[in-house]
Amino acid sequence: MQSQAKIVLNPIGYVRPAAVGDEVKDKTRLSTIVINDEFAEALDGVNEFSHVFVLFWLHGVSEEQRKTLKVHPRGRRDLPLLGVFATRTMLRPNPVGLTLVELVKVEGNVLTVRGLDAFDGTPVLDIKPFDSWDTVENVRVPDWWVKLEKEKSQLG
Amino acid sequence: MQSQAKIVLNPIGYVRPAAVGDEVKDKTRLSTIVINDEFAEALDGVNEFSHVFVLFWLHGVSEEQRKTLKVHPRGRRDLPLLGVFATRTMLRPNPVGLTLVELVKVEGNVLTVRGLDAFDGTPVLDIKPFDSWDTVENVRVPDWWVKLEKEKSQLG
Repeated sequence: MQSQAKIVLNPIGYVRPAAVGDEVKDKTRLSTIVINDEFAEALDGVNEFSHVFVLFWLHGVSEEQRKTLKVHPRGRRDLPLLGVFATRTMLRPNPVGLTLVELVKVEGNVLTVRGLDAFDGTPVLDIKPFDSWDTVENVRVPDWWVKLEKEKSQLG
Repeated sequence: MQSQAKIVLNPIGYVRPAAVGDEVKDKTRLSTIVINDEFAEALDGVNEFSHVFVLFWLHGVSEEQRKTLKVHPRGRRDLPLLGVFATRTMLRPNPVGLTLVELVKVEGNVLTVRGLDAFDGTPVLDIKPFDSWDTVENVRVPDWWVKLEKEKSQLG
């Protein structure tokens, strides 16, 4: 009953950030996503959305790293050791990144987005429009998450 | 510079909804996700989040259907013909589903969630905790989307 066929994905395009290195983590920074010509038509109408999810392949994660089951968030030993599905670490069985970005503009097969935390050359797997199904109220997050958020806002 | 290695994903578990057929589209319905034993440890701490994203493999989509570039949303010809990246259609080059669900409970390797629109036996690829980075204010969506939303609320 369960499909045993291999799940094989193909990049639809690549990230071309303006930033290099760790600066890609700056959420206000612009990146471009260059969609392969063969998929350009599949972008028709996406410009009417203000925000999109970008799914991308974390190609720097090795086969060995995919076996990681537990991590300290951001590698910080003052925070609890947690299962990878309780964090957004790159080290996960299927290293697919998911980021909600602001869609700044679309020109032909090139999207300009704000807030994409992916490095230059990252293969992009999917673009999905963001809508009201994707929001919730009364979100509950763990204490360790609140702590990280507080530190970030103090830095900002 | 771009990685040419194949992108191969492996299920981390499977969806086991209570619903059958189209009823899975009822957003209030509960489903269970049974995570494979080998990844059970990777769930540690996820119970502290009220909501998680579920990434799943739309295994009913054929290789031929993955070549679809444009669709009418929900197959409705009264709505514009749009690129697949401007919709949440299953027919996309990489048929990975993304749904934000309420995490109702975690018992061992079984998650009970509310709002997962996936059929029985659907391979699950990833679980990611939902946090404040995943929300935005002042979202803009197209007219066709507003129309669909309005119809839905009238049905409800």
